[in-house]
Amino acid sequence: MDEWPDFKGKHILSGKQFNKMEIERVMAVAEDFRNELKTRPSLHLCPGNVLGTLFFEPSTRTRLSFESAMLRLGGSVVGFAEAGTSSSAKGETLQDTIRTVCQYTDVIAMRHPRIGSAAEAAEVASVPILNGGDGAGQHPTQALLDMLTIKTEKGTLKDLTVALVGDLKHGRTVHALVELLKHYHTRLLFVAPPALAMPTEIATELVARGIAIEETDSLNAALQQADVVYMTRIQKERFVDPTEYERLKDAFVLTRAMVDAGKPGLTILHPLPRVSEITTDVDSFSGAAYFRQVQNGMYARMALIALVLGRI
Amino acid sequence: MDEWPDFKGKHILSGKQFNKMEIERVMAVAEDFRNELKTRPSLHLCPGNVLGTLFFEPSTRTRLSFESAMLRLGGSVVGFAEAGTSSSAKGETLQDTIRTVCQYTDVIAMRHPRIGSAAEAAEVASVPILNGGDGAGQHPTQALLDMLTIKTEKGTLKDLTVALVGDLKHGRTVHALVELLKHYHTRLLFVAPPALAMPTEIATELVARGIAIEETDSLNAALQQADVVYMTRIQKERFVDPTEYERLKDAFVLTRAMVDAGKPGLTILHPLPRVSEITTDVDSFSGAAYFRQVQNGMYARMALIALVLGRI
Amino acid sequence: MDEWPDFKGKHILSGKQFNKMEIERVMAVAEDFRNELKTRPSLHLCPGNVLGTLFFEPSTRTRLSFESAMLRLGGSVVGFAEAGTSSSAKGETLQDTIRTVCQYTDVIAMRHPRIGSAAEAAEVASVPILNGGDGAGQHPTQALLDMLTIKTEKGTLKDLTVALVGDLKHGRTVHALVELLKHYHTRLLFVAPPALAMPTEIATELVARGIAIEETDSLNAALQQADVVYMTRIQKERFVDPTEYERLKDAFVLTRAMVDAGKPGLTILHPLPRVSEITTDVDSFSGAAYFRQVQNGMYARMALIALVLGRI
Repeated sequence: MDEWPDFKGKHILSGKQFNKMEIERVMAVAEDFRNELKTRPSLHLCPGNVLGTLFFEPSTRTRLSFESAMLRLGGSVVGFAEAGTSSSAKGETLQDTIRTVCQYTDVIAMRHPRIGSAAEAAEVASVPILNGGDGAGQHPTQALLDMLTIKTEKGTLKDLTVALVGDLKHGRTVHALVELLKHYHTRLLFVAPPALAMPTEIATELVARGIAIEETDSLNAALQQADVVYMTRIQKERFVDPTEYERLKDAFVLTRAMVDAGKPGLTILHPLPRVSEITTDVDSFSGAAYFRQVQNGMYARMALIALVLGRI
Repeated sequence: MDEWPDFKGKHILSGKQFNKMEIERVMAVAEDFRNELKTRPSLHLCPGNVLGTLFFEPSTRTRLSFESAMLRLGGSVVGFAEAGTSSSAKGETLQDTIRTVCQYTDVIAMRHPRIGSAAEAAEVASVPILNGGDGAGQHPTQALLDMLTIKTEKGTLKDLTVALVGDLKHGRTVHALVELLKHYHTRLLFVAPPALAMPTEIATELVARGIAIEETDSLNAALQQADVVYMTRIQKERFVDPTEYERLKDAFVLTRAMVDAGKPGLTILHPLPRVSEITTDVDSFSGAAYFRQVQNGMYARMALIALVLGRI
Repeated sequence: MDEWPDFKGKHILSGKQFNKMEIERVMAVAEDFRNELKTRPSLHLCPGNVLGTLFFEPSTRTRLSFESAMLRLGGSVVGFAEAGTSSSAKGETLQDTIRTVCQYTDVIAMRHPRIGSAAEAAEVASVPILNGGDGAGQHPTQALLDMLTIKTEKGTLKDLTVALVGDLKHGRTVHALVELLKHYHTRLLFVAPPALAMPTEIATELVARGIAIEETDSLNAALQQADVVYMTRIQKERFVDPTEYERLKDAFVLTRAMVDAGKPGLTILHPLPRVSEITTDVDSFSGAAYFRQVQNGMYARMALIALVLGRI
């Protein structure tokens, strides 16, 4: 195991910080945990350790995922679910809150609406910070669970065509995901209305890494080629012109008829929550992996917690 | 134990689903737990298991009761205390939230303002759902703890006269309770203003089961006959005519003087929280069982959790 | 150990209830725990025990401190972080809520905006109540952690000059602290604007106990003499005349330049959260002990929980 990267004491702030070996390591540990949890409800890897969950912005899914990850490792949890009950409501700075919570906990998972907030927290933290989303910034644990899900569903991360669909301009999950996918020989299809296209600097960097990219605004066309389609929500409030939103929104809704007419063996991911961008008749499709993706989230976060605590 | 009903993997949605043997089973397990907890703070029956508590509608009492039940079984808890911090605030459907939380947890306790929501959740859930109240619908764990309390206080569930007092039209706790009481040879007194009377279809079904029913709007009259009086709150907002409320409200307030003038050996229950319908001078009366009832709630929920997880 | 005071089953309501031996006992246990936690993440002193945290008024710091204290003792936690999700929102009295939560828990930590609320709770509680702040009343666990921090930082509690700075009229932390300091041979400097001076009855009682007191409104003057400076926030809303606030506020802000010009070896405490009364350039000063103080809070609360549960 000497060749494995050492995560002990490290902050997990951005998809950018991971090299390929580190991605492989997190996925391998997560797969181990997934196997072990088939025969018992939890492991005994972090008994006595305390996770702090600081959600300045509410998120049931991500918070409960981190919390159950810690509980399944045998540890326990303190925290808050919204800024309203935290000291920040009394005017405390983020860094003071972090310095405080570091006195109680062994590792902190946080979500905050401000870009860069997780890095700000890491500057003063005496325990590892796990970034659970910093505004329109990064969301590295989501990206790792997405990678784990693609690997699990397809058996490999190599030579896949992955379509990213919806709001590629603002979506932090797709930004974080391409940071990891760029380490693999992947072909990417960007499926978005022009107003919500992938930022040029990200696309340019991917091309420089040798990633093949195609852009289209036809979801149906993408479904003819994609092995994996990663759906995201298009938010009405992102459009200046509401008639433009009305014109476009249905073009980025995935239905069972579209799936059935697409390339066989399709895998469908979505970071959730979904509103209407995947119709519920898709849920029974064998390649609809978005709820398995949720479970992989717990395993990926278990892996990260155990790794930064040096328990592996 | 072969003759005992098997609860493993079952949803607990409604008082209607229980036959007499199942009610007896839950009470027997709860009584065992109550005895065992006299000598130690918790059991080690569900170590590593995780309960999800999804309270889309706040309820300190019911939520803390479920949570401490799981902790006293050696398990742990994730969840939320109000819809505001949950993904439903982002437009996620209840069924998607449930499918998500099933990926993290081994059993879910939920409260939701919509009638039928627990059954909706059970349709898609891969873990047992415990209904902690679905709007004006059912509240089966409350009914089971009420039964357990009556049995504990009186020594039996047979040949009792039970007065149900207050808002019998909207009160889900009394509706759920009579679903269980109908399996026993009980005489029921319905004590309510005409506008808040027990719905005819419920009364009719009880009569068809051979239950003796009497209706009155005099609490004092009922206290001459009742072995058990089950108080509920009369809510001002249920009345179209506020003067009608003013006229009636005091007739359904239980005072110490009324208790002392009633049938000896009276047992008083209340699902709590109470506002003013039982005056505090009643609290020191030996038959005032409403706080013991709270504790029985924890034991009944421990029993249900352990049973649906197959730990007994 | 026979000479040690017995805390088992006792309520912790006010700094006034502690004699010197009791203060020493809590500090000694807290110091033991601090040492033991250097080599492992938690102790196994209260397994199976449940702490209820009832925060009718939000406070991240105090709530997380109590919760992590219980987790580090091997126990677990149920509770609420704000009154909005509690039954009190439905009109339940505090005493009914307390009687209810006593059925689920082994010890309760509470914060409530009303003076005297913790004592009210203790009247009906069947488990120990730990007062985590009752409005402008008491905050005894804060006072104990402050004492522990002074002792740890200075090596002694004897013959120290302690400056209390800021709003000495309303600040419950300083009121609670002087209740404990009066048992030691301490010299106190009260540094406050006249409108926010220490209440006369408190000062009088201290003098009667033989404590030397000096009053000044010059923080710089106090820094020439103090071994320990205890900063608190001056709140704008306390002033009738806003121009008076503007005139005074900067006189009670501690900067690095002021610290460097003060008496060597100064220790700086603050109950936190701070807003602007200590500038961040002070944080790197070796005597800036306010985050170590936070950690001592966890140890002091561990000591109190273990003591009132009779686990020591």
